[in-house]
Amino acid sequence: MSDDLLSQVDDTIHAKARLGIMAILAVEERADFARFKRALGLSDGNLGSHLRILEEAGYVSMEKGFVGRRPHTTWTITDLGGRMYRQYLEALERLLRGAAPG
Amino acid sequence: MSDDLLSQVDDTIHAKARLGIMAILAVEERADFARFKRALGLSDGNLGSHLRILEEAGYVSMEKGFVGRRPHTTWTITDLGGRMYRQYLEALERLLRGAAPG
Repeated sequence: MSDDLLSQVDDTIHAKARLGIMAILAVEERADFARFKRALGLSDGNLGSHLRILEEAGYVSMEKGFVGRRPHTTWTITDLGGRMYRQYLEALERLLRGAAPG
Repeated sequence: MSDDLLSQVDDTIHAKARLGIMAILAVEERADFARFKRALGLSDGNLGSHLRILEEAGYVSMEKGFVGRRPHTTWTITDLGGRMYRQYLEALERLLRGAAPG
């Protein structure tokens, strides 16, 4: 059991930038690039690459739409992503308590 | 402010293995190598290198002592380490909420 303490904390989510993205989407459900940038202060390239990693894991999904005639891309959290995020928070909590009587 | 959200989460602590070490020491104050291994399930080399990073940051301190005639090394959390750990938890909390109204 105890040696699972670390492996249960999902690396795909634990990276700070991706944790920030997941936290935003867990609360707001849908966000655009500008929203992530404003909150997380990442460069375009950096933010784009973290979003891609989350997409490839199936945790977030990109949707291309329009605002008026202008293309507008947004991201949402998937069912899998929501589930993995909750599991991540529980695993993190266990690690912080983990600690627990040895 | 918002672009501090990520940088305020201390990388020295955020790595899962080091977060586990700090969490143990924050609760137990003193622990030996076997205690960390049991809780975190890391290899000796891996655990040793994470402990060294925390020592070099001044967050933990190594003490060589004896149990009977056998050498026994333990680690404690330093004042700085305790402070940085509390700051880390606050920054993590902010990131998770960080999220907050954009």
